[in-house]
Amino acid sequence: MRITVLSGGVGGSRFVQGLLAAAPDADVTVVVNTADDVWMHGLRVSPDLDTAMYTLTDAIDPERGWGRRDETWHAKEELEAYGAEQAWFGLGDRDLATHLVRSMVLREGGTLSDATRRLCERWQPPVTLLPMSDDEVETHIATTVDGADVEIHFQEFWIRHRAQVPVHAVEVHGLADAVPAPGVVEAVLEADVVVLPPSNPIVSVGPILGVRAVGEAVRTTRAPVVGVSPIIGGAAVRGMADQLLTGLGIELSAGGVARHLGARRDGGVLDGWLVDASDADHLPGLDALGVVGRAVPLWMRDPATTRRLAEDTLALADELRG
Amino acid sequence: MRITVLSGGVGGSRFVQGLLAAAPDADVTVVVNTADDVWMHGLRVSPDLDTAMYTLTDAIDPERGWGRRDETWHAKEELEAYGAEQAWFGLGDRDLATHLVRSMVLREGGTLSDATRRLCERWQPPVTLLPMSDDEVETHIATTVDGADVEIHFQEFWIRHRAQVPVHAVEVHGLADAVPAPGVVEAVLEADVVVLPPSNPIVSVGPILGVRAVGEAVRTTRAPVVGVSPIIGGAAVRGMADQLLTGLGIELSAGGVARHLGARRDGGVLDGWLVDASDADHLPGLDALGVVGRAVPLWMRDPATTRRLAEDTLALADELRG
Repeated sequence: MRITVLSGGVGGSRFVQGLLAAAPDADVTVVVNTADDVWMHGLRVSPDLDTAMYTLTDAIDPERGWGRRDETWHAKEELEAYGAEQAWFGLGDRDLATHLVRSMVLREGGTLSDATRRLCERWQPPVTLLPMSDDEVETHIATTVDGADVEIHFQEFWIRHRAQVPVHAVEVHGLADAVPAPGVVEAVLEADVVVLPPSNPIVSVGPILGVRAVGEAVRTTRAPVVGVSPIIGGAAVRGMADQLLTGLGIELSAGGVARHLGARRDGGVLDGWLVDASDADHLPGLDALGVVGRAVPLWMRDPATTRRLAEDTLALADELRG
Repeated sequence: MRITVLSGGVGGSRFVQGLLAAAPDADVTVVVNTADDVWMHGLRVSPDLDTAMYTLTDAIDPERGWGRRDETWHAKEELEAYGAEQAWFGLGDRDLATHLVRSMVLREGGTLSDATRRLCERWQPPVTLLPMSDDEVETHIATTVDGADVEIHFQEFWIRHRAQVPVHAVEVHGLADAVPAPGVVEAVLEADVVVLPPSNPIVSVGPILGVRAVGEAVRTTRAPVVGVSPIIGGAAVRGMADQLLTGLGIELSAGGVARHLGARRDGGVLDGWLVDASDADHLPGLDALGVVGRAVPLWMRDPATTRRLAEDTLALADELRG
């Protein structure tokens, strides 16, 4: 079975762990959001690719959910002492090597796909990790900081301001012209199931689907497309989806996100949508939307609940494949 | 009093510490060798500039004599795990921040002088630190490794091979076209004393003097030029001068290095030359060469002996100035 997952960072990677437990023989491709990527101190940082790579190889720091285990922060301390811009970014010493290797590949004329393969040669994740695009795409947030209207990189919004500034608009620079990385469209078209895991619909899943040819592939693949709500009971499971959805006028609910993504029969991207058991009241609305809903336990508390969610996802895909 | 020192890394920096103790009111400019500089993992590393900056601000690791105190090596471990080329280079986690800041300045179109100023804004060394040139100059060693004749960067010769491979030739790429960094020629021409501290004559002092306009300034300045022998009793005080001098057919002695540098009256760069008390037998030869020699204790064992050596250097300069 070929499963293709369109993933952001933490939530998507955790979901993939469950998927690997639920379907150990599946051939899993994870198409990862790269719109969070950023040049930091002259290094190209790909937060979601790294979170996926580290999570799926047990190299992740389990407390933080990003970056490396047993990390130290001496380079970061020194950058702060130099008064470097961007010193607010969480650049761990071990993690730095990853960014150095990636940046070297890019500077030598390689693509982000090349860099990702180079990094994965070491880590050997049990899936195929693909960046959504080799083109530079960067999410910026139009906001107000200290009374001034500014546009800042998503990382600055999220890490530096902890999403505690208003969201006037989200601009994904480079997205309109971005083409999919090699293998991405094939992975969607040739999959038996396409999964949208509980990743942020605006800044994670949104940019992946926003790469025109990827969105088209998701709309036209013969595989069922099943999503998992990142919202439970009116709040994001993690991250800053609350602030983003509210800022963009999208209803902060499992049903609101489904309406935002749309049913495939009407030009959207969803065939099925899993909501939390506590959100069963959204099922009639999903029905009306033309999306097959199921209410199941959505919290990925531990390996067992995470695997169970993946099983529920695959079960719904089976039904839809009929 | 204006003192200009043409320095390599460890020995030169230690000498400057003595100079600052001996002449606390002097206006000291240190023109630093940049021919050891190298791109490592996409970062520009300037070993001698950093050794000078760290030594003169007590940030240096006193045991190693290079790099930062309280250093950790996690990024380096990870680069090794990635199988990165150049992972043999001693890239400490704290030190990395210095290279990141320098590389950012260069990538944004700044010069090495700009980068050095930026770094010194933080460290505030009690001297003016100037790179010898803003042009990229790199010392390569023609050698034989595993039976094959190859040309390798000086850092690879020194750090990776620990100078345990033969020296067929020293090629300083970029030197012929290099122009002095801003302030360097003025610092030599307007000095009251020019000092060649006990730095490596081939790969430290050599490249500085090899920047054509710097060599001319040293040959023509009205200030006396006094050097300190880096060789005591037939062996280098530190580093790999033994291997280099022997490989190049230069006599490995205090007198041999003086002959290599030459007397100013004959187009060389020396007016005075300090040899170790144990090398007093070289004084007649210096006399014949046209260089005023003095035999004094040359070992910089501690702050007191280092200061004493600087005092002897300034005393000889006073005599020469007449």
